Amino acid sequence: MVRVGIIGGTGYTGGELSRLLCTHPDVEIAALTSRTNAGKKVQDVHTFLRGYVDLEFTEKISDTKDLDFVYVATPHGVAMKEVPALIDQGIKCIDLSGDYRLHDVDVYQKWYGHEHTDVDNLQKAVYGLPEFFRDEIKGADLVANPGCYATSIILACGPLLKAGVVDEDIIVDAKSGTSGAGMVPSERTHHSTCGETIIPYSIGKHRHTPEIEMAVDKFAGSHTSVTFVPHLLPIVRGILSSCYFNVKKDMTQEEVDSIYSKQYGKETFVHYVPEASIRAVVASNHAQVSSRVIGNKVVSFGALDNLVKGASGQAVQCMNLMLGLDEKKGLNIPGLGV
Amino acid sequence: MVRVGIIGGTGYTGGELSRLLCTHPDVEIAALTSRTNAGKKVQDVHTFLRGYVDLEFTEKISDTKDLDFVYVATPHGVAMKEVPALIDQGIKCIDLSGDYRLHDVDVYQKWYGHEHTDVDNLQKAVYGLPEFFRDEIKGADLVANPGCYATSIILACGPLLKAGVVDEDIIVDAKSGTSGAGMVPSERTHHSTCGETIIPYSIGKHRHTPEIEMAVDKFAGSHTSVTFVPHLLPIVRGILSSCYFNVKKDMTQEEVDSIYSKQYGKETFVHYVPEASIRAVVASNHAQVSSRVIGNKVVSFGALDNLVKGASGQAVQCMNLMLGLDEKKGLNIPGLGV
Amino acid sequence: MVRVGIIGGTGYTGGELSRLLCTHPDVEIAALTSRTNAGKKVQDVHTFLRGYVDLEFTEKISDTKDLDFVYVATPHGVAMKEVPALIDQGIKCIDLSGDYRLHDVDVYQKWYGHEHTDVDNLQKAVYGLPEFFRDEIKGADLVANPGCYATSIILACGPLLKAGVVDEDIIVDAKSGTSGAGMVPSERTHHSTCGETIIPYSIGKHRHTPEIEMAVDKFAGSHTSVTFVPHLLPIVRGILSSCYFNVKKDMTQEEVDSIYSKQYGKETFVHYVPEASIRAVVASNHAQVSSRVIGNKVVSFGALDNLVKGASGQAVQCMNLMLGLDEKKGLNIPGLGV
Amino acid sequence: MVRVGIIGGTGYTGGELSRLLCTHPDVEIAALTSRTNAGKKVQDVHTFLRGYVDLEFTEKISDTKDLDFVYVATPHGVAMKEVPALIDQGIKCIDLSGDYRLHDVDVYQKWYGHEHTDVDNLQKAVYGLPEFFRDEIKGADLVANPGCYATSIILACGPLLKAGVVDEDIIVDAKSGTSGAGMVPSERTHHSTCGETIIPYSIGKHRHTPEIEMAVDKFAGSHTSVTFVPHLLPIVRGILSSCYFNVKKDMTQEEVDSIYSKQYGKETFVHYVPEASIRAVVASNHAQVSSRVIGNKVVSFGALDNLVKGASGQAVQCMNLMLGLDEKKGLNIPGLGV
Repeated sequence: MVRVGIIGGTGYTGGELSRLLCTHPDVEIAALTSRTNAGKKVQDVHTFLRGYVDLEFTEKISDTKDLDFVYVATPHGVAMKEVPALIDQGIKCIDLSGDYRLHDVDVYQKWYGHEHTDVDNLQKAVYGLPEFFRDEIKGADLVANPGCYATSIILACGPLLKAGVVDEDIIVDAKSGTSGAGMVPSERTHHSTCGETIIPYSIGKHRHTPEIEMAVDKFAGSHTSVTFVPHLLPIVRGILSSCYFNVKKDMTQEEVDSIYSKQYGKETFVHYVPEASIRAVVASNHAQVSSRVIGNKVVSFGALDNLVKGASGQAVQCMNLMLGLDEKKGLNIPGLGV
Repeated sequence: MVRVGIIGGTGYTGGELSRLLCTHPDVEIAALTSRTNAGKKVQDVHTFLRGYVDLEFTEKISDTKDLDFVYVATPHGVAMKEVPALIDQGIKCIDLSGDYRLHDVDVYQKWYGHEHTDVDNLQKAVYGLPEFFRDEIKGADLVANPGCYATSIILACGPLLKAGVVDEDIIVDAKSGTSGAGMVPSERTHHSTCGETIIPYSIGKHRHTPEIEMAVDKFAGSHTSVTFVPHLLPIVRGILSSCYFNVKKDMTQEEVDSIYSKQYGKETFVHYVPEASIRAVVASNHAQVSSRVIGNKVVSFGALDNLVKGASGQAVQCMNLMLGLDEKKGLNIPGLGV
Repeated sequence: MVRVGIIGGTGYTGGELSRLLCTHPDVEIAALTSRTNAGKKVQDVHTFLRGYVDLEFTEKISDTKDLDFVYVATPHGVAMKEVPALIDQGIKCIDLSGDYRLHDVDVYQKWYGHEHTDVDNLQKAVYGLPEFFRDEIKGADLVANPGCYATSIILACGPLLKAGVVDEDIIVDAKSGTSGAGMVPSERTHHSTCGETIIPYSIGKHRHTPEIEMAVDKFAGSHTSVTFVPHLLPIVRGILSSCYFNVKKDMTQEEVDSIYSKQYGKETFVHYVPEASIRAVVASNHAQVSSRVIGNKVVSFGALDNLVKGASGQAVQCMNLMLGLDEKKGLNIPGLGV
Repeated sequence: MVRVGIIGGTGYTGGELSRLLCTHPDVEIAALTSRTNAGKKVQDVHTFLRGYVDLEFTEKISDTKDLDFVYVATPHGVAMKEVPALIDQGIKCIDLSGDYRLHDVDVYQKWYGHEHTDVDNLQKAVYGLPEFFRDEIKGADLVANPGCYATSIILACGPLLKAGVVDEDIIVDAKSGTSGAGMVPSERTHHSTCGETIIPYSIGKHRHTPEIEMAVDKFAGSHTSVTFVPHLLPIVRGILSSCYFNVKKDMTQEEVDSIYSKQYGKETFVHYVPEASIRAVVASNHAQVSSRVIGNKVVSFGALDNLVKGASGQAVQCMNLMLGLDEKKGLNIPGLGV
């Protein structure tokens, strides 16, 4: 059994990691840290874990010995303080925050507004999107888990950009459920504010923009420019990203379908379908992608559960790869559908 | 034109008062106070008031001279500090908080947990539910505007209790939209917490309980005991209160219908209908009541918009009465229906 | 008093027309037709109209004499059969369906899939978007009321296209509440299907596409091409259209702001604001527009209530103009805000 | 591997059964019937089953040979036509409709409005609520799976009624998500009708009423009378039932807690918690129960996912018992929490 620790066990991604790992056949959850809940029983805080997790939150990850693997599920800025010591001890890590996603330190500092204090590991971190970087993930000691928006967008855009059939200047109109904003109450996520509307925010300024550009550039081999406008949806879980391209030359629907089918035909968790649907994948690690030709444009949609394939599920998928386990372990369940 | 001031202009009930009063034909909004927004234009804070309210928030109500009428739309505990000076100046007031609703000082202190510092006016305040206390309201200098739950429940229960045909021991299972909790973000009203569920809260402890009992006792002439369980609904506006009674002796549906029809047949804003509906009344000062006999029990439903008939609309209705105006002024619009 | 009739009084736009007109100071609702509800009291079907409309539905509009004005609020294909006789009798009309929006008969037949049987009036009909065609509306006998999506999009795009500062090739990612789909239950609007997700539909095929292009072409003087992707939102009322442009040459945010402010500065119902919001305008005839420069692109947002400014409210606004009344009559109320 | 067939594979409970069974370690889904979708691939209809179910829908269950177990997931009235032949062939069955829940034929005919044509099996069918009838289920050939409301209510009320500490005359105010109404669009489940409100329906007439009374009577040993008022919630999945009792003699909170803890302390899927929560159990077979003393009354809450513990999950739990498997098989996953 792999002994796993989670730094930041109280938040939504920490809770979701626990939910997924508690029935993973090869894993034992050995530690969950929480500054605010240290000493409390995990299942009294996350009541959905009753009968599944019989642990107390601890203050620090170093309170627990003999860990084999650690997830860092904290706000950005924390992981870069925790990861170096873990890596030094030979503990493999996945960071679910933005700390290790941008390899260019200057870009990091520009978008996150503070210095990066672990440049060494930043260079070594692998971007944890298995459908495009599976081999690198298998050999990695540190994986930077992609952002939820970024995952949905890269899955929707990647195949066309990789195939070189569309312009590199793309428009992304993305929509996310409120759980993507985390568990801390705010004016924007107050139900009376966001409950019966859709709200565009961080227009052109969202931190997933450079992450998407960087990741796509790697496999597309040319510079992609993303105009990214996220919108807050009045649902709890789920992202739909609608991505608009200009085609380089006319394409038929069949040609587009063929590009996506080739890319995802053998994937377990990403499906090219006629109509990508949040409901089909919610509560699971699956994602759906669909695409439609409209004249000289193509619109592609990426749908996923922001807490699973957009965060904790993808992290478990990466862990499986890093540990040489079957990629599906602990994640082998369909989306809800209804 | 009646010059009106609103203490607490930033909150939901203050905003709603402004929304209703800005097109009231006999009223001029002369002052809106806000500690946090003093100096800002009202329409920059309440963007829905663009073109309707050309004012800046002020610090204190005394910053504005020659007011004829003041609404206090603040959390409880504030009105009792503001009202005495206003009444002394001969300014009529309506308090939308709980400060003046419970005439018994001991009951107030028990449920609100602090002393009442304006016992004099507490004795004189009239409970502002026009359908049951219209005459008292007409002569009042100070009206205590009922709570949103209390209004829906008294409208649903009042006729049967007044007619003396049901036991005084009633069960109320009430459901409210999130705007009833006000504008301050909290864990409970965080969208991801409350967005796709229904949450019972303050079970047996909600402060509207004594208010309902007191109000009903006045016109029913006997002591009513209310078991009140509120639930938070994933909608923004609207309350439905489901009220359960034991009948004293068997009643037909026709007898029940007749009691309600007699009570509300001439009312402008309260309607006895086959199926009380939040959608039929939302965004208006109307309320709907329906009632059904089930064996030896009766269930009655009260539906309203918690910010209008449950708060600011009812306050405007009371003001109209206090000023000798037509009760409908500024409120003459149907509910949305859809 | 203008005696008004509504053909198709049962549907959402017919109900909303009744809701708005029943308190309009210069109008008397004289007739509401409904094939399914003929003979029933209007307020028993539209229970929100209790106390406001004391009429029965009739079978045909010709059952009522001496009408001055008629709204046609039926599915497309019906108005073209009703309008000729009304116009012949000198009754002014507004059609809320798509029958008279596309002046080119061929375009109509391509998008609606059947012949147009009233080509004469089709040529004369005026497109009822007051903010761009006010003078033509004033002199019209027949107004084609714009579609809800089209209104939000033209309001958001019009100023930039008219100013000639952006490419004519635009992308529109629009989001609508379910009431835009009308009152007939369907698989797509079944709550369990659409309640906790967002669903793209009619991708590149929605009938508002040619309408937008035609209307914009008129005042922009060049051919606009719209890639229009509507999405179904899990809210009842409200549209947000996110419109993406390439700028012809670099523009500052101030230049963009100035174009919109000039266009809408004197408008009663359309407001250029920092953040266009559905909640700020819902339940009112107001619309909000905002716009943001992102590098060499601009994104503009149009927000409105699809049943009011997107349908029945705009129709009342047009009627006011056609009758020489104050444009605000019957519509002078702010949006809900919360 | 147990070869399982599902009659009625298109509906919500049929889809949910497939979702749960497709990863059940001891089960092979061998047949799914659907009149409307016969011949289509299951994963093209239920797109969430991509990669999990590689079958086509068939017309009739008899099209598939060598089935060991059959679920009937059809509207009531169908199972009684299918079950006799299956039982005759020695195939164990679970009926998810109401056909076999009411042992008294007269009661069945009164509530369902048509004759029962399989009285023999009706007498033998076991009510499939494992937490109260585990031993009977283990030996059963035919299980009548409880209704979703009934499950939540019996779980909340059972312990107090069994302990004999409360009056047998109880009031149940229940709230259900829309998926409980099934997949067929209707006026009530049209999003614009139910999306932003709560709607009481079938007041005192819902068919789960006699089912609850019958089930509770069995283990409580006295006649229970349930006043049951269901409400439609604007969520997709989830039921919360609020159940009100009069206590026979004063009870402390501790005494109540002790009764529930004793009942459910060893259960895998039913948890007695401080605050029962739909979110804690949604998407899982878990249910939560909480209870609160208010003076001489007690209110108890039962929360579950109507499609899992309220339908298909409970059916799988029953199948596990009928087949001598571990009760948790295929169901061992926590609720979503968020």
